[in-house]
Amino acid sequence: MSNSALILAGGAGTRFWPASRRARPKQLLALDGERSLLQATVARLAPLLPPDRIWVATTPALADEVARQLPDLPAGRIVVESALRNTAPALGFALMAMPEEVRRGAIAVLPADHRVADAAAFRTVLADAFTAAAGGDAVVALGVVPRWPETGFGWLELGGVAPGPAGLRRVERFREKPDAATARQFLASGRHLWNAGIFVFRGETLLGHLARLAPEIGSGLAALVRQPERAAEIYAALPAVSIDYAVMEKLDDIVTLPLDCGWDDLGSWQALYEVLPAGEGGNRSHGATIAVDARDNLLFADAGTIAVLGVEGLVVVRTGDTVLVLPRERAQEVRRVVDALAAAGRADLL
Amino acid sequence: MSNSALILAGGAGTRFWPASRRARPKQLLALDGERSLLQATVARLAPLLPPDRIWVATTPALADEVARQLPDLPAGRIVVESALRNTAPALGFALMAMPEEVRRGAIAVLPADHRVADAAAFRTVLADAFTAAAGGDAVVALGVVPRWPETGFGWLELGGVAPGPAGLRRVERFREKPDAATARQFLASGRHLWNAGIFVFRGETLLGHLARLAPEIGSGLAALVRQPERAAEIYAALPAVSIDYAVMEKLDDIVTLPLDCGWDDLGSWQALYEVLPAGEGGNRSHGATIAVDARDNLLFADAGTIAVLGVEGLVVVRTGDTVLVLPRERAQEVRRVVDALAAAGRADLL
Repeated sequence: MSNSALILAGGAGTRFWPASRRARPKQLLALDGERSLLQATVARLAPLLPPDRIWVATTPALADEVARQLPDLPAGRIVVESALRNTAPALGFALMAMPEEVRRGAIAVLPADHRVADAAAFRTVLADAFTAAAGGDAVVALGVVPRWPETGFGWLELGGVAPGPAGLRRVERFREKPDAATARQFLASGRHLWNAGIFVFRGETLLGHLARLAPEIGSGLAALVRQPERAAEIYAALPAVSIDYAVMEKLDDIVTLPLDCGWDDLGSWQALYEVLPAGEGGNRSHGATIAVDARDNLLFADAGTIAVLGVEGLVVVRTGDTVLVLPRERAQEVRRVVDALAAAGRADLL
Repeated sequence: MSNSALILAGGAGTRFWPASRRARPKQLLALDGERSLLQATVARLAPLLPPDRIWVATTPALADEVARQLPDLPAGRIVVESALRNTAPALGFALMAMPEEVRRGAIAVLPADHRVADAAAFRTVLADAFTAAAGGDAVVALGVVPRWPETGFGWLELGGVAPGPAGLRRVERFREKPDAATARQFLASGRHLWNAGIFVFRGETLLGHLARLAPEIGSGLAALVRQPERAAEIYAALPAVSIDYAVMEKLDDIVTLPLDCGWDDLGSWQALYEVLPAGEGGNRSHGATIAVDARDNLLFADAGTIAVLGVEGLVVVRTGDTVLVLPRERAQEVRRVVDALAAAGRADLL
């Protein structure tokens, strides 16, 4: 039985505005290099899986750009959901769209918008996860070895050793985004990993769990197959919940492999600053930039040139139609600008 | 004898980069409104002079854009110097290009890149200056009533009352750009005005002064007339000196009228900030901008949109190809960015 991968590339968000737009969200951007995060995700899998074993789920608004960015993907590998309904419906819909033979094999489900510094280390762990999942009904979560007490992620609390590849452990339980003190305890304990949202399981195993644990989604998916002419209507009515919430957190028996590969979910301009290499004066740059007597800025030129003088700790993002300037420490507040533009009737910039 | 005006519009500079470029210097920019500073300068004169009495001197690089901006100027009113040689050669060359009848009348010489808040007050003083100059050989300097102890301008030290329109005073002497303490003394004395670089005289009077006080320029201009086929060569060899230095500061007998009309030479982005009306949060804007929790910034969008969040006291300038960010208090240092770009081989941005 062959292994496959399903990349979830339908997401939307505002945290990388103005580089990201409704029609060009984060996963379609080249944030940390020449390739988009989606392209990098596919390239990272290529040594492990043939092209016809890589599937991409996305939405109608993004389907053309996804296809443009992935010209080597065989026909039919892009699954287009009719609406944005979070990961549980998206995952179920994509699994239903795959041939039965694929669903019987192990499938890795991965977000399209993460960054991995060490792709080889990533593949070694993913190969072990395929091994652990292919033979039976295991659900394997990749758990990132934490590097700081992050409050923005869910965490996995480790249980005992599980039978299978070296390093496989039971997940004692899923821990929701912790407060700062709890996150520090998690980090210090050595018994917690970040939940990276990367899972490996046999497709049929997961569809069984969906039917049992999220019956509304399970029966909706079954109805979709019976009534393809009503597919859009049925899909739009599915509850927009994450696969973590709908299934993973409810499973008694889930296992994990620790992942130590420079993983980052690039959750903000500040997160991008942290992974880009520092240039002169500690500035981190993308595109054409020039800095005079300026320190520790993130200068992201998607189009045109950014010039700064005498400023420190700023994010400056230039796109073809917009520039955004804000302090790095307030990078989480980009949404306020997007909201203000929406209120000002500037939907053209969103 | 009719009065005329000569607007010197050949200048270059970097202080409004990136809005200003070699091919589009400050005088051709709409910095504080819909019109460029050159267009505003012409419009300011219009109630006082018919269109065929307004002359504009510029350089080959700018001539097309000057003509485009001033479609109502009669043919032949744009005098194109063959090179950029500062104001003394430019002024002399333009005077030589005028019909003799014009040169016999009073001519106001004005920079093209200044701002005047109260155009009517400006015209009242200029009309008096024409009166003072038209009848004889007076050279009238308009002296701006100082509003702060500026160290970046030359000053005029007042002498006694001169015969002519009310307010006419002798200039005791020209004072070079003073240090801060001297500038404060000048301001406190009530006996000093800013030298605005605006002069009124009969054309023939000034050509006589040029021939006598700057013989190299005077004889060069005469040679130009004799050998028009060598004009470019002769003009390029003239010393690049200002009319202040070549003539005005050497004249024994120069008079001035005080000008109190909200004059500003707009010498930097900071100077522009000071004259633009304050919006919400004290931000001053041009073009499409949005500010969230941001204070006292100058946001100048020549093209596209500027969005800022949580920043204070910055200059942010966006053009079609570039963005510049620097603290307002360092606006005088824009040249360092221009120099760095030149060193980096980015002549396309200069």
